[in-house]
Amino acid sequence: MILENEPTKQDITEAHERIKNQIHRTPILSSSSINKIAECELYFKCENFQKVGAFKFRGASNAVLSLSNDELQKGVATHSSGNHAAALALAAKMKNVPAYIVMPRTAPQIKKIAVQGYGAKIIFCEPTLQAREETLAKVVEETGATFIHPYNNYSVIAGQATCAQEIIEENTDLDYIIPPVGGGGLSSGTCLSAKYFSDKTKVIGAEPLGADDAFRSLRDKTIYPSANPNTICDGLLTSLGEKTFTILSRDISEILTVSDEAIVAAMRMIWERMKIIVEPSSAVTLAVVMENKEKFAGKKIALILSGGNVDLAKLPF
Amino acid sequence: MILENEPTKQDITEAHERIKNQIHRTPILSSSSINKIAECELYFKCENFQKVGAFKFRGASNAVLSLSNDELQKGVATHSSGNHAAALALAAKMKNVPAYIVMPRTAPQIKKIAVQGYGAKIIFCEPTLQAREETLAKVVEETGATFIHPYNNYSVIAGQATCAQEIIEENTDLDYIIPPVGGGGLSSGTCLSAKYFSDKTKVIGAEPLGADDAFRSLRDKTIYPSANPNTICDGLLTSLGEKTFTILSRDISEILTVSDEAIVAAMRMIWERMKIIVEPSSAVTLAVVMENKEKFAGKKIALILSGGNVDLAKLPF
Repeated sequence: MILENEPTKQDITEAHERIKNQIHRTPILSSSSINKIAECELYFKCENFQKVGAFKFRGASNAVLSLSNDELQKGVATHSSGNHAAALALAAKMKNVPAYIVMPRTAPQIKKIAVQGYGAKIIFCEPTLQAREETLAKVVEETGATFIHPYNNYSVIAGQATCAQEIIEENTDLDYIIPPVGGGGLSSGTCLSAKYFSDKTKVIGAEPLGADDAFRSLRDKTIYPSANPNTICDGLLTSLGEKTFTILSRDISEILTVSDEAIVAAMRMIWERMKIIVEPSSAVTLAVVMENKEKFAGKKIALILSGGNVDLAKLPF
Repeated sequence: MILENEPTKQDITEAHERIKNQIHRTPILSSSSINKIAECELYFKCENFQKVGAFKFRGASNAVLSLSNDELQKGVATHSSGNHAAALALAAKMKNVPAYIVMPRTAPQIKKIAVQGYGAKIIFCEPTLQAREETLAKVVEETGATFIHPYNNYSVIAGQATCAQEIIEENTDLDYIIPPVGGGGLSSGTCLSAKYFSDKTKVIGAEPLGADDAFRSLRDKTIYPSANPNTICDGLLTSLGEKTFTILSRDISEILTVSDEAIVAAMRMIWERMKIIVEPSSAVTLAVVMENKEKFAGKKIALILSGGNVDLAKLPF
């Protein structure tokens, strides 16, 4: 099933043209020592080096740059305390338009400072889903700002798809691309780019066992809410939306789940051997490879390191 | 004064030719947010991404590859528990010749494992300078191996000089290159490359206040031993040798010292904003810039990030 307005090959190509001058073309690194341990060829797409430290800036940029001049003037809004909030704030700042970010009062100080640093207006609410949605609705009504959902939005999905598009441009014979799966923006975009630009490349999603709602949702063909997720991967706590669910149901090869223990071990391996900082949500991709060595033996695999925003005072090592 | 056999321009060019296929050509990164804070243009040469995680592999490779076949057969030896030991072990392994590493019994387990992992033979000794030198002399006598000093060795210095040579190849109009100063292998090599390849570029050494023996040695024109150094920079504890002292005395513009507090703040800034892992000995270079902002305002400066080997269980954050 293809939903109306789902991003086409041309939409993704155009998204990349639209955002390419304001995003980083992130490097693809490899590590001979990790390849030796994993017994396959791994290519790490370093979105931890992306602006705001996460792939989210691609989707937010495409969403902002796709708005009409009238829409732009009124600004953009979202509810998030994570990387999407910072990404949208920066994308809005670069177009010199207002960004309204609804955030629970309880959000970590470090996140508030980051978003304020990008010049966004923060509107605090109680830390409940209802308060968040009501507050956002009120902000949108009062300001006329356009709501940019963190993932259940085709402009955002097309933006995230440019990450796999770049990977495929540089690696034409990949067996697999493995993105982490949270709300499904990155993973569904990856599926679309693989289908359009390299039909021999399969996409496998990587998900923490403690937040395996996407795995269960695809298995049972229904969207489960992410109830009481329990994982170190703070970027992968959300449930799928109907747009991302539809694309993933149709196009992803499978979702593999791994324990937090395996994720922390993989994160440590990346830090120690590659000397780069990735957040736990990035390391879930390597953990999936390490926990399924027979399946991946000898294959060429791109792993999307989705971000590098960690609190250095709270490391799991 | 130029000592006999001191590396010439041609020696450094030949060293680079000799080692270029077995070292990584490390990237030079920049960060617009750090530039904004520092109010100058910084270029970070990422030797933390070098093999064994440190620039030391350049010098060790050049030393090993400069040996005759007869010498090679008998192998190489050194005393070190740090990055030079791992670098020499790997360089020897790549030529399939033995490496003998004299190490105090008290060296951290993690260092022993690293060196053993590269196939070197470790000879343990008591943790005193005398025991170390006696044990090394015995090993050299018994095996006929060539002693490769960590820094007071012209092949090593020429190898370390290839780092600045690469920097200058990619940046022709630098005002300064700032290496950290420990035993002086990297800093004296940097001075030679700046002199030969870009005479408008000055070299300023960065040294921790708690191990400022090089600063005092140059000021008083005599080599002070590094007595009771007290700094987080575990790669910068050694004193100068007569070869490195002679080059630095003649060619370095100056040495600037900074507190450990400033070093840890700079290290944190690199980790958080660049998402790369550097050891404290690398961060001393950025600390020097941050602590002398007026001096460096508006200048183009390359900082050598010398290594990325940290114990993740013992971070200063």
